[in-house]
Order: sequence, then structure tokens, then C-alpha cells
Amino acid sequence: MPSMPSAEQIQKILDPLFPGLMGVRIVTLEPERIVAELEVRPDLCTAGGILHGGAYMAFADTLGAVGTVVNLPQGKRTTTTDSSTKFIGGAKVNTTVVGESVALHRGRTTMVWQTTIKSQEGKLCAVVTQTQLVLDA
Amino acid sequence: MPSMPSAEQIQKILDPLFPGLMGVRIVTLEPERIVAELEVRPDLCTAGGILHGGAYMAFADTLGAVGTVVNLPQGKRTTTTDSSTKFIGGAKVNTTVVGESVALHRGRTTMVWQTTIKSQEGKLCAVVTQTQLVLDA
Amino acid sequence: MPSMPSAEQIQKILDPLFPGLMGVRIVTLEPERIVAELEVRPDLCTAGGILHGGAYMAFADTLGAVGTVVNLPQGKRTTTTDSSTKFIGGAKVNTTVVGESVALHRGRTTMVWQTTIKSQEGKLCAVVTQTQLVLDA
Amino acid sequence: MPSMPSAEQIQKILDPLFPGLMGVRIVTLEPERIVAELEVRPDLCTAGGILHGGAYMAFADTLGAVGTVVNLPQGKRTTTTDSSTKFIGGAKVNTTVVGESVALHRGRTTMVWQTTIKSQEGKLCAVVTQTQLVLDA
Repeated sequence: MPSMPSAEQIQKILDPLFPGLMGVRIVTLEPERIVAELEVRPDLCTAGGILHGGAYMAFADTLGAVGTVVNLPQGKRTTTTDSSTKFIGGAKVNTTVVGESVALHRGRTTMVWQTTIKSQEGKLCAVVTQTQLVLDA
Repeated sequence: MPSMPSAEQIQKILDPLFPGLMGVRIVTLEPERIVAELEVRPDLCTAGGILHGGAYMAFADTLGAVGTVVNLPQGKRTTTTDSSTKFIGGAKVNTTVVGESVALHRGRTTMVWQTTIKSQEGKLCAVVTQTQLVLDA
Repeated sequence: MPSMPSAEQIQKILDPLFPGLMGVRIVTLEPERIVAELEVRPDLCTAGGILHGGAYMAFADTLGAVGTVVNLPQGKRTTTTDSSTKFIGGAKVNTTVVGESVALHRGRTTMVWQTTIKSQEGKLCAVVTQTQLVLDA
Repeated sequence: MPSMPSAEQIQKILDPLFPGLMGVRIVTLEPERIVAELEVRPDLCTAGGILHGGAYMAFADTLGAVGTVVNLPQGKRTTTTDSSTKFIGGAKVNTTVVGESVALHRGRTTMVWQTTIKSQEGKLCAVVTQTQLVLDA
């Protein structure tokens, strides 16, 4: 495996992409655990001033994909094959949510990552579980 | 049920919200079927110039929620309880994807909507199935 | 691809396995569509005399896997990587449910099958979507 | 909430039902955690002598439902609205798998339970996350 990139290096890759549009900030980058923050801006919300369900899912998808990428052997790439989300609680506009993605499985053919998103008070908002296929680059 | 809003009315509600940030455009609004378009802008992509998995999910979540809202009896509101996505094919930057959401179930307690996202050539990109809980407003 | 097996040949393979314990009966076997029946025996139910949620999922998983197997190129095998189910309505004891599984995608790396389970009156009971990975045998 | 039933009382309810047909044995019953065992009998397998994917899902669905039932306030009942499974590893015939279901959320309207199934050597086989709706009885 290549040497682990830093959170800053990953952040630079994300910034011009969809996670950058949303404002995803990578806080911690470890081989089995990625932590990031997302400010609940008004333009990330749905009606009623709470974070849009799609924003939870896009936030989590980013973390699970980053987790997979930093674990890929050389000459491999990854794609998400499926993602399942349980929505549990709302996150209010102008607060910050924290996402933590942990590896449930890191195999040669697939990796499975689970992301837990909590409000800034620590209340559980959503749980996202995704499968990443490992393919030849 | 209140009279059906128009696609333009729904578009105006969405524009200042997350679907507006992404550029979701509602094309057709019927009680059992919502169609919308999304331009694959560079800032909606992941690495490699393809639409970010999270953008598919946010696009679909928007359509399933709109479909539920236009079917809600007065005095009710809705929240997504879960969403499951199968990713099947990539959509390239600077193309347009089309999402079509159809009601699999419209009950008093839950509604289930399934959104199929296709490339502009009609290739299947993703299928998203979501459950909406119907609650007292 | 090898010549298509018959429904009877597949039934013989299933009978000593879990689908046989449950009483799954393959009715129609086509490359893009599998239909089967399941009698809602008391020992397939949960409390209250309705088909157990797990029985729906096992019934569907069987059909999606059979669908994949009959589409595998020689020298390949398959495994389910994920399955997502929306439960919509109950099926009563001593009735028969019908499952129809259709291919949403039949690719070289993955196949995606969706199974719709209906009561004998045609009421929608559950929708199951599963991804099958295609691997070297 | 009524007093907590014992594992033996729950086992007696399950035995004439689908979990009884499969041989699910409840080992530990706590308000936030249910543990059970399942012997990988030949008639629970798929081709190749490994536990059928549907058996994993039915095993987990049983545990999440039991967990919800023991947490229901009086006058309430529950139904599974959705279930999502990631399959990670196979379990061989004539071994025993262990399922542990923990509450991710126990709310007034929904509960979310996650079941982890491991082989007898402790290898992760599957993760199942399900939403239970809480309804008036």
C-alpha cells in the first residue's frame, strides 16, 4: 500500500468536487476511521430549516469513499455499489454535524464502511452503510 | 387532499434549498410520478469527472420527498426514514441525467418511492428506493 | 453462456437447501425474469399469523440469486453483496404469495435484481433489491 | 413499559414460528441488546455448503423485532418497514453463527436495530440494519 495521504491532501482533492460545494471538512484521517464536519448552511437544508436527507447521504458517501481510497492497494480503484441510510433525527440550520466513518470490512474485493452522523450536541442523526467494490485501475 | 401544486411552484420552494444548490430542475409533476433533470456540473462530480454518488442520492431523495408531499392529506407532514441506492453506471461531467420517481406505495402511514436515474443516452445509472413516514404536522 | 436450465432443474437444486425448507416453487424461469410461489405456512409466519419478514427476504434472495446464476458466463460464480427490502403489506397465513424478480442490470462485474412480492389478491407486500457480485469460479 | 420477558418466554413464542423452523436460539435478552445462535444446518444453506443469504436476513430480522417488542410501551405494536444487509463472509455448514442485535435508536415512532452476525471463529459474516415502526396496537 502507498503511504497514507494527509487530511490536508485529501481535502485539496475534495475541494473542487461535490464535497467542496457542500463544505465537507476532513478532520481526522486514519486507515480505519475518517472524521469530518459539515456546517448546516441554509443551502444544504430542506424545508423547515433542517439538513436535507441528501446532504447526509452525500456527506457519508464522501467519507466511506475516502476511507476506501486510503486503503486501496496500488493499481486498484473503487466505486460505491450500494448505500443504505437510516434517518434518525434532524440537524438544525446553522449548527454543525460530525460524521465518523469506520471500516466494517476491508477485503480484497469489497470494503464496507459505516458512517454515523451526529449533531453538535451528540444526538444521532443518521447511519449510512455502504459497499465499495475494489477494481483494477 | 389539497389541489396539486404545479412544477413551477415546487421549483420555487426547492431553489433556495439543497436541490437548488445542486441545480435540480423539476420537469413533470404528477401524483404518482415526478421527473426531473440534473446537469452534471464539475462541482457535482467525484474524482474522474463522473457524478458523485452523493449527488445521485440527493437528487433522488428530493424527488421522492416531493412526490410524498404532493400526496399528503391536509394536516400531515413527511420525513424520510430510510433510503437504499444501487449504483449501476457512471454519468459523465457536462452531460445531463434524468431522474424519474414513481410511487410503489402510497399508504396512510408510509409511502415508498423508487427513483431511476438515467444518463442522457438512456443508460441506467442508479436506482434509489426510499420510505417516507407520514406524520401529524 | 451455457444453455438455460429449466425451472425443474433449478427446483431440484433448491429442494435440499433453504428454499426447499421454506417451500419455494419456481414457476417461470427466463433470462430476465423469475417467478415463484410460496405458501404462507404457519411455520413461515411471525406472531399474528402473517408471513415473517425474514421469509420475504429469503424468498427474494433466492430468486435474485437464481436469476444471476442463469446469466453467469462459464467459469464464473456469484455472491450477494447487499440486499435492501421495503416492507409494504402483510401476507396472511394459509394464502400464497407470488414473487417476481426482474433484472435491473446484468453487467460483467455486478448484476442487480429486484423482486416484487404480492399477495394472491395482487396486493404489494414487499420490494427487495439486491446486488450480486460476479466472481471467478 | 411492562416488565421485561425472559429469554425463555421469548423462545417459546418463537418456536412454532419461522425462527423456530430455522432453529434460532435466544441466548441473551437485554433492553438494548439481543444475542442468539443459529446452527448452520444443511437445510439452511445455499449451494456450496454455506449459510443462505436469506437465513442471515431472517435471523437478523427476528432479533431486531424481538428487541423492539421488549421495548414497546403498552398498547403499541411494531412492524419492520425496511431492512438492509451487507454480506461480508460465508458461514460453513455444520458450524454455528452468533447474532448480536443492538439498538441504534429507540424512539416513540421508530426504532432502529443493527444486527452483526459472526462465525464461531468470530469472523464477520453480515451486518443488517432495520427500521421498526411503532404503531397503535
